[in-house]
Amino acid sequence: MRPMCILGIAGSLRRGSYNRLLLRAAAERAPKGMTIDVYSDLASVPLFNEELEGENGPQAVVRLRQRVHDADGVLIATPEYNQSIPGVLKNAIDWLSRPPEEVLAGKAVAIFGASTGRWGTRLAQAAVRQTLNAAEAVVLPSPAVFIGDASSVFDSAGHLSDPPICAALDAFLVAFQRWIDMVAKK
Amino acid sequence: MRPMCILGIAGSLRRGSYNRLLLRAAAERAPKGMTIDVYSDLASVPLFNEELEGENGPQAVVRLRQRVHDADGVLIATPEYNQSIPGVLKNAIDWLSRPPEEVLAGKAVAIFGASTGRWGTRLAQAAVRQTLNAAEAVVLPSPAVFIGDASSVFDSAGHLSDPPICAALDAFLVAFQRWIDMVAKK
Amino acid sequence: MRPMCILGIAGSLRRGSYNRLLLRAAAERAPKGMTIDVYSDLASVPLFNEELEGENGPQAVVRLRQRVHDADGVLIATPEYNQSIPGVLKNAIDWLSRPPEEVLAGKAVAIFGASTGRWGTRLAQAAVRQTLNAAEAVVLPSPAVFIGDASSVFDSAGHLSDPPICAALDAFLVAFQRWIDMVAKK
Amino acid sequence: MRPMCILGIAGSLRRGSYNRLLLRAAAERAPKGMTIDVYSDLASVPLFNEELEGENGPQAVVRLRQRVHDADGVLIATPEYNQSIPGVLKNAIDWLSRPPEEVLAGKAVAIFGASTGRWGTRLAQAAVRQTLNAAEAVVLPSPAVFIGDASSVFDSAGHLSDPPICAALDAFLVAFQRWIDMVAKK
Repeated sequence: MRPMCILGIAGSLRRGSYNRLLLRAAAERAPKGMTIDVYSDLASVPLFNEELEGENGPQAVVRLRQRVHDADGVLIATPEYNQSIPGVLKNAIDWLSRPPEEVLAGKAVAIFGASTGRWGTRLAQAAVRQTLNAAEAVVLPSPAVFIGDASSVFDSAGHLSDPPICAALDAFLVAFQRWIDMVAKK
Repeated sequence: MRPMCILGIAGSLRRGSYNRLLLRAAAERAPKGMTIDVYSDLASVPLFNEELEGENGPQAVVRLRQRVHDADGVLIATPEYNQSIPGVLKNAIDWLSRPPEEVLAGKAVAIFGASTGRWGTRLAQAAVRQTLNAAEAVVLPSPAVFIGDASSVFDSAGHLSDPPICAALDAFLVAFQRWIDMVAKK
Repeated sequence: MRPMCILGIAGSLRRGSYNRLLLRAAAERAPKGMTIDVYSDLASVPLFNEELEGENGPQAVVRLRQRVHDADGVLIATPEYNQSIPGVLKNAIDWLSRPPEEVLAGKAVAIFGASTGRWGTRLAQAAVRQTLNAAEAVVLPSPAVFIGDASSVFDSAGHLSDPPICAALDAFLVAFQRWIDMVAKK
Repeated sequence: MRPMCILGIAGSLRRGSYNRLLLRAAAERAPKGMTIDVYSDLASVPLFNEELEGENGPQAVVRLRQRVHDADGVLIATPEYNQSIPGVLKNAIDWLSRPPEEVLAGKAVAIFGASTGRWGTRLAQAAVRQTLNAAEAVVLPSPAVFIGDASSVFDSAGHLSDPPICAALDAFLVAFQRWIDMVAKK
């Protein structure tokens, strides 16, 4: 049986971003039958502008759209900026939601996230969820993975080292795998 | 094959509420294989208070919890109060979300709504969705049914008489039926 | 000069609620020139129903409306239920927002809150803020006071005993005092 | 007395954007004592990335930050993308909120918006408000100006031609003027 191919997207452009590390941890811990590729080109997606849509739109958008189209599911790791979704992540979703492709419609998506502060991306995840729902994505309802104090859950090599969070991440990925199966049978 | 039994809940206590009429229209237009029973006892659900939970909790809560438990899906028609979910509806969800039963967890739910004003319950529906998601319900992502100027879409006998909205409602109910099937196979 | 009279409202009906303790702490620590009276009758406010509005509406609503009207400001301590505003608190705001009095319109309000869990009422406070804004209250923008792990910040007698949170509360109350002054000059 | 200088920012990059027309209408109708300059360089603000912050950060950000700093108030006209704030607008706010300048903290801001669809930016405005509040801006609480079906309220020359909306806009601008005065006295 073909493995599920997941596209991971981090909502921060910073190279050392904890949400990027979180995606890497997810890729390493993915359950049997799931592979996670991490998208690394968010910085090349231009600011959304209808006037740029033309025939195909900007190349970076065309490529990202194709990758979302080809994926069995999308896994979004989001930081929280100003108690909401990062602009860079919202901007990418704004492109992806556009007709005629609307590649997020019907797509299985899961959201998690880490913040260096104490409060763990609850407002960001709620905002990402609302926006994905508007784009008609089919978002995993639970379990949620909120990670605060992110600097304390990764070791110096950037590996997730907090046992309860590792266990929560494993359960989250298994639930996402089932969710993708369910959505595929729709 | 057993028909799907849906529990309809209107988020307003007013007898002539447009959201109650909307549920009645849904019940009349339900697709083959689906029946919709409208819950009419929201006024008897007390204000949430952990101290009342005791053995079983208030009788009205016990009965509502049982009806949600027994239903194949829950259909919520919500007005918008102060740009958000009505307190009376949130209060019922607060009871239903509580352990040990947590009857909303894993339950298929769909949200729609009507308002007399122009703006059609977008903020209310977003708030209901966020709260149901927290309770781990599995909420139909799309299509959405937003109805503004509700007084103009029902006739004097209280029947939904606006053809585009009738068609949107039909599509919504069919999508909900498929969603329930999908969630059942999870 | 007349002291500012603040009405404190806790969003939970539980007697031992941490948000009630938080209001008590605020009352004890109120800056010179401010007194805080804690409203203790939220349990008697019925579920909102337009049909009950009649001449004056339910007695508990009439009394609460009068107290809000008479107060120089309203201080709301909210727990988080299902990632949002508690139904009991939203229900009270739904009553208070109604014409013809609309006692919240133009009223200075501040929001804070405590939760026993880790995540500290960020989603609840955002929801309360959105709803108060819809009711045209004039809500203190900052600083925010989010309190997680509430059981660890009060001592066994129910007094706030965490020095950084005491300091944050003091700064919050001083900012609210200035905010009320500012709104009064509008 | 020096006139109030307002910086207007439209949340869309499209040249013919209705929100840009709305800002132009606001500039033309500004009350005595208020001038509104429309910022036209949002397209040059790069995607937010902490790694770019360095000494001063990107030139476009430095210039925008200076303009916000110098303005007596900021007027934001926002479309609604995917039931929330446009990514391009959120991205600019993410830059503006950053230390050490934090130019939005304490700044008077007002939000309005137009959409071509029926539903009139209620969800977008709520999201903009939440994010500005996180950045400690002091956002005008009311009145709100929601404009749906935007193509029907401007004439063929792009001038606002709907009398009730003109009146609502005038009242909104006068309220903003008073709000700025109030915030200045804080």
